[in-house]
Amino acid sequence: MDMLFGLDEKLTSWLEEDIGSGDITTNAIVAPEMQTKAIIHAKADGVLAGVEVAARVFRLLDANVRFTAKRADGDALDKTTVIAEVRGSARAILTGERLALNLLQHMSGVATRTAKLAAIAAPYGAKLVDTRKTTPGLRLLDKYAVKVGGGANHRLGLYDAMLIKDNHIKVAGGIRQALEKAHAYASHMTKIEIEVESLEGVKEALDGGADVIMLDNMEPAKMAEAVKLIDHRAVVEASGGIDETTLAAAAKTGVDVISVGALTHSVKALDISMDIGEIK
Amino acid sequence: MDMLFGLDEKLTSWLEEDIGSGDITTNAIVAPEMQTKAIIHAKADGVLAGVEVAARVFRLLDANVRFTAKRADGDALDKTTVIAEVRGSARAILTGERLALNLLQHMSGVATRTAKLAAIAAPYGAKLVDTRKTTPGLRLLDKYAVKVGGGANHRLGLYDAMLIKDNHIKVAGGIRQALEKAHAYASHMTKIEIEVESLEGVKEALDGGADVIMLDNMEPAKMAEAVKLIDHRAVVEASGGIDETTLAAAAKTGVDVISVGALTHSVKALDISMDIGEIK
Amino acid sequence: MDMLFGLDEKLTSWLEEDIGSGDITTNAIVAPEMQTKAIIHAKADGVLAGVEVAARVFRLLDANVRFTAKRADGDALDKTTVIAEVRGSARAILTGERLALNLLQHMSGVATRTAKLAAIAAPYGAKLVDTRKTTPGLRLLDKYAVKVGGGANHRLGLYDAMLIKDNHIKVAGGIRQALEKAHAYASHMTKIEIEVESLEGVKEALDGGADVIMLDNMEPAKMAEAVKLIDHRAVVEASGGIDETTLAAAAKTGVDVISVGALTHSVKALDISMDIGEIK
Amino acid sequence: MDMLFGLDEKLTSWLEEDIGSGDITTNAIVAPEMQTKAIIHAKADGVLAGVEVAARVFRLLDANVRFTAKRADGDALDKTTVIAEVRGSARAILTGERLALNLLQHMSGVATRTAKLAAIAAPYGAKLVDTRKTTPGLRLLDKYAVKVGGGANHRLGLYDAMLIKDNHIKVAGGIRQALEKAHAYASHMTKIEIEVESLEGVKEALDGGADVIMLDNMEPAKMAEAVKLIDHRAVVEASGGIDETTLAAAAKTGVDVISVGALTHSVKALDISMDIGEIK
Amino acid sequence: MDMLFGLDEKLTSWLEEDIGSGDITTNAIVAPEMQTKAIIHAKADGVLAGVEVAARVFRLLDANVRFTAKRADGDALDKTTVIAEVRGSARAILTGERLALNLLQHMSGVATRTAKLAAIAAPYGAKLVDTRKTTPGLRLLDKYAVKVGGGANHRLGLYDAMLIKDNHIKVAGGIRQALEKAHAYASHMTKIEIEVESLEGVKEALDGGADVIMLDNMEPAKMAEAVKLIDHRAVVEASGGIDETTLAAAAKTGVDVISVGALTHSVKALDISMDIGEIK
Amino acid sequence: MDMLFGLDEKLTSWLEEDIGSGDITTNAIVAPEMQTKAIIHAKADGVLAGVEVAARVFRLLDANVRFTAKRADGDALDKTTVIAEVRGSARAILTGERLALNLLQHMSGVATRTAKLAAIAAPYGAKLVDTRKTTPGLRLLDKYAVKVGGGANHRLGLYDAMLIKDNHIKVAGGIRQALEKAHAYASHMTKIEIEVESLEGVKEALDGGADVIMLDNMEPAKMAEAVKLIDHRAVVEASGGIDETTLAAAAKTGVDVISVGALTHSVKALDISMDIGEIK
Repeated sequence: MDMLFGLDEKLTSWLEEDIGSGDITTNAIVAPEMQTKAIIHAKADGVLAGVEVAARVFRLLDANVRFTAKRADGDALDKTTVIAEVRGSARAILTGERLALNLLQHMSGVATRTAKLAAIAAPYGAKLVDTRKTTPGLRLLDKYAVKVGGGANHRLGLYDAMLIKDNHIKVAGGIRQALEKAHAYASHMTKIEIEVESLEGVKEALDGGADVIMLDNMEPAKMAEAVKLIDHRAVVEASGGIDETTLAAAAKTGVDVISVGALTHSVKALDISMDIGEIK
Repeated sequence: MDMLFGLDEKLTSWLEEDIGSGDITTNAIVAPEMQTKAIIHAKADGVLAGVEVAARVFRLLDANVRFTAKRADGDALDKTTVIAEVRGSARAILTGERLALNLLQHMSGVATRTAKLAAIAAPYGAKLVDTRKTTPGLRLLDKYAVKVGGGANHRLGLYDAMLIKDNHIKVAGGIRQALEKAHAYASHMTKIEIEVESLEGVKEALDGGADVIMLDNMEPAKMAEAVKLIDHRAVVEASGGIDETTLAAAAKTGVDVISVGALTHSVKALDISMDIGEIK
Repeated sequence: MDMLFGLDEKLTSWLEEDIGSGDITTNAIVAPEMQTKAIIHAKADGVLAGVEVAARVFRLLDANVRFTAKRADGDALDKTTVIAEVRGSARAILTGERLALNLLQHMSGVATRTAKLAAIAAPYGAKLVDTRKTTPGLRLLDKYAVKVGGGANHRLGLYDAMLIKDNHIKVAGGIRQALEKAHAYASHMTKIEIEVESLEGVKEALDGGADVIMLDNMEPAKMAEAVKLIDHRAVVEASGGIDETTLAAAAKTGVDVISVGALTHSVKALDISMDIGEIK
Repeated sequence: MDMLFGLDEKLTSWLEEDIGSGDITTNAIVAPEMQTKAIIHAKADGVLAGVEVAARVFRLLDANVRFTAKRADGDALDKTTVIAEVRGSARAILTGERLALNLLQHMSGVATRTAKLAAIAAPYGAKLVDTRKTTPGLRLLDKYAVKVGGGANHRLGLYDAMLIKDNHIKVAGGIRQALEKAHAYASHMTKIEIEVESLEGVKEALDGGADVIMLDNMEPAKMAEAVKLIDHRAVVEASGGIDETTLAAAAKTGVDVISVGALTHSVKALDISMDIGEIK
Repeated sequence: MDMLFGLDEKLTSWLEEDIGSGDITTNAIVAPEMQTKAIIHAKADGVLAGVEVAARVFRLLDANVRFTAKRADGDALDKTTVIAEVRGSARAILTGERLALNLLQHMSGVATRTAKLAAIAAPYGAKLVDTRKTTPGLRLLDKYAVKVGGGANHRLGLYDAMLIKDNHIKVAGGIRQALEKAHAYASHMTKIEIEVESLEGVKEALDGGADVIMLDNMEPAKMAEAVKLIDHRAVVEASGGIDETTLAAAAKTGVDVISVGALTHSVKALDISMDIGEIK
Repeated sequence: MDMLFGLDEKLTSWLEEDIGSGDITTNAIVAPEMQTKAIIHAKADGVLAGVEVAARVFRLLDANVRFTAKRADGDALDKTTVIAEVRGSARAILTGERLALNLLQHMSGVATRTAKLAAIAAPYGAKLVDTRKTTPGLRLLDKYAVKVGGGANHRLGLYDAMLIKDNHIKVAGGIRQALEKAHAYASHMTKIEIEVESLEGVKEALDGGADVIMLDNMEPAKMAEAVKLIDHRAVVEASGGIDETTLAAAAKTGVDVISVGALTHSVKALDISMDIGEIK
């Protein structure tokens, strides 16, 4: 997994959200010195994502918890898969259970749907990418899960690339003006993408020197025309409400990249559970 | 909306997640002094939640932005509904757009699904409640959206009530032992709930003085028996993978409360969008 | 001790309060590599509370400090009691001394007074509890020290139970109205307490379905009447300026719970001190 | 009041400690738009401290709350004194009540005791000062309250002056060695104080160039000898378990400064209360 | 100035660094209600940067301070230039003076040196850019000041573009391997730059599809050859210890971009001062 | 090195400034399990400062990195000096490189210039000290580097000593009034310094009981007169634009202390570099 500097701080704040002034059930019932072994296992088919994140949750509660991953991110899961074994303080394991599972279920949910969609796009050579429609606070985890599922990332935020959208164009007074301002401001290290809705727009974007052209909500036929017109002078991205039913048609047009917001904005959690085993 | 002390701090961290070192597209294209008016509108049927949260997002970026809500949380939306009008700094409005929409779409998604399920349970007098399977960092917003959709809240975290689950019972060595420890530790202000899987368990829970008894993954017939056995001596909660298809059957058994994790762990974002209007 | 998630963050901020830009005395006089052994000992009679908290203070300054507790929280102390031995970096031990002692003295002060009052209430079967009149920032430590001293906790904050006080009743327009609103809002996991000042109030509270009834500033005779009237249909709490001189009379009335603000709002620090021993 | 930069951050964290996931009682019973007027008044004799701090508590909850002080810090209070009037959001006023009162009661408690002790010392020309035995997190508020009560401050923390205590001297190997190291390290802007227990120690401290000499736990007679010996070549401070019963004797010896830990480590809260008035 | 979200948080922490437990000089001498007018003026020739940042410093201390800029960022300064007028609380103005000046002096120092170097490069069409050799914590302010001085920005951090340096190439085993891995990992929105030291390296970089090629520490003659070889197939950046004496020679070679670490790592503060005027 | 409590928090925020959402170059090219050895070495003559700070940077990224210092703070460096060896995770070493070097270069730059100036002042017995003109956020590191270079520290901030400057005197209405107010407010542990511009001022300062008198921008001849006039009744500090060319003349006058803002406000980074060695 990529080094996620700052992740522990986030996990700590999420633990605080759940624990607040204390896990009164666990404190009441479990003696501080009790040790246990728990099993985390899948209860549905899917793609695993978030194993190291779950491990960190328990370690933040007790540095002595041993989390042994039995499967790695990207592995296929079914109802019989044991994902990890967790040994150590029974209090830490019970108190951390919910957050660890919430993250595993959410991230695996993202990876599972991404894998399904990426498989549709792959035969046509189109790269499936995410958007900024991620859950607030989980941007990097959501984007990581997309990669685990076989997708790729669009820009990570407003800071690492320019994407001139319809609202920006309206403010600028047109595609040409927007691209001029973008080039004047951009570092030589910054890529510039612009959203267009017509072939006219595509031409203006090419003239204006866009690195990437986003075809927004275009019909496949027009998309194919745009791809031809662009002719590798810019990267071509298809976007706009694409899902399982429309992805293949978009991919066939020859676009380089297809972005799908639903990968991260409408996540179905994958069913994953934890069982306490022996106690000492 | 309830006073959410600390919400601005969270929104700020989510803005930082998206903006990072700066919204380079907006900074390039939009002059600092530009003013605009934008419209936030629904593109699908559903229940609105999060209007005040969206308003705060823009105000954190520029205290002079005027956000005028046209609809309130809990209102029904369709494809023609204008939700709000936002006037002020074009930079603030464009930079804040994504976070405001991500929150509105997520919260309205929760409210919309809750409304559907609550309508199923209502005729039988059963209260639909959420769980702790919320998105990390969004616990209070998710739980608020459940209330907006017509559901009620279960405990807010590990700190405000006791819920003795199967893993706790295993550690304690039985239902009786778990309830004894819970009563010994609990404040006189704390309610104690326990999860049971059998009628035997129900009896033990009653004997042990549980305030609330959770029937976990029981068949409707057994659930009905349990309700009869409990006979109003404790609040009865049904739980375990209940969804649109099984909710009515559970509600018919006479349970007081039905908890559904999917209200918050598998959220389909409601389609909501923003359009920039005139510019000065 | 219960797992106090987030305690290190608090201790760190208190160390920063004292250390600021540096402990210039210790930095001037003590070489960084110097090791020492110190003894923490009591100089007065009382009940110990806060040993683990003191240990953490030193470890936050230097992870290699070894803190060996000779007594545990709840133990009786007198002028000869050695509480703990601290070995390691002389700088860490000298810089941490004051905060560690301030906390030990404060928490042991709370436990000591609680023990005295709990002993008065115990023969009558009444539980002594604390209030929210704790030192800002020390809520959980104060409430923990109350338990160490043999008391019990009331709610931990505004979030984990409802306590409808006179000011709320005034706003609501009466006891009945307040309880109606409370029941409409409350989760099925939330207990509701209400403060009453008369037998009329007691009746209204019972009719309104309060879980706990607080008798505020009642004379013992009236209190006893209220207990009779309530007849175990709700938990009964006595409250209002109760101290060493009035506690027994209140306890005799048969109330279940007696809350005493002075346990935490007027704390006499227990005299505890640290002596440096050998140096290397 | 001195500018306390950073106070709002502290108050916010203390509000979070009390409010947590929400003031459920107030949210249930008080409509968001309700306005009220409340009176804060004393119920005992004492010296007021913390009025502006209390005002800020309410303003942090709602910027529109109007807090009108009727008395200023340092004013004498009795059972009839109205301290302030608070108008605005009933929710903000009820939710903030406890923290505002906890601070007012604590700070006024410090000021009240300080005023009593300062009055004893004053006739002899001795200045009464505090120590670092303050409540963790309240250092600046405690020290401010001491000044309000007519005392003066010792150093504020480990960072703003040197105080070489017995443990430092032991580590250094003697008074002479400790003072040598202190002078070598100290800025030309730093005062150096040293604790001594004997007249021998006083001589060494004078030879070593101490700016301030602390006579620790000395009998008044010996203290007087020390004062004579020092003869205005250093400031003289008396210290060590001094209280109401021993303060005059210490002051008579001619010391310049008398430090009393109990001013801040053993605080009796002054009884102060809030009443809700009319509601709209 | 670009919207610098999060700047106030930084300024607050810098104020805390200076103010700590309080500006005791100002608190002693200046009454809280005193108002004054101060003038901020230059005492040397240079380019102004940081006016809005200075304004915010005072406003964070007192929201009522009125800061009236007389000059804007980018304006030329000489010894007679009045930069701004500051009116309001004398305490806020005196306490904020040093931080406001430290920032103005530092940022104007960066802008001044950038302006000198940019003027040398400009006639040859080469863009002068900064590096990541900025002062820790001041990255965005330093980079902003470079733009004010007429330079441009390289990437803002490790997150917004790839720059494969010699150490990365060593780890990867060669230029080709490094670029392969970079392309496999990079988003379609990410530019890839690579550092080369020879013409061989240039060829490999072109074959590997680098967007930008950095010629590190090359002699001008070899640099010119490299420019010819690249022939606009990639952006060309010159780098490595370039300063006033070597910049023109580098610029003449036809490179597109010249990066100079000293713009931000070795800053000579511009002399700027504040004078208090009338007092009321 | 003095215990710098809180340094890790600062270093973490500076790492976040550089790393943001991830070091995409290193993540792309370096496998997570790769180990390497790197050498940090000087490329210019100077005085080393910041070795432990650099070590901490790497350890914050990976606790297993071993940083072996070959030279200590205060050591003389030349182009052949190896400063340290760093072994461990190649990712941590490459990602931390820039911040570690930025700090080492900056702090060594401060130490190097301080050493040069201190050598000029030393023969005359004058102590060279710094000012509050430090880089925001780096106050303690800058002041530490001054000590490493052989200088001494003035006060650390606005909190640990009083320095009454011209602007304060203007507000107070004169030197006498300012000193009266300062004495009335000051703790007995606080030194008071005042800035004067004339011999008249010197006399007033002496009469007013200043501990330290700052001669601001005086000609050497007048400075010498002032020294004579003060005659050891106060510490004498020379200040105001003193640099390499004027320092000896100031030192000759017999002043005790000379403060030089440029030690920290205009820092020339010392050239220090890192090379990756073997990889496994």
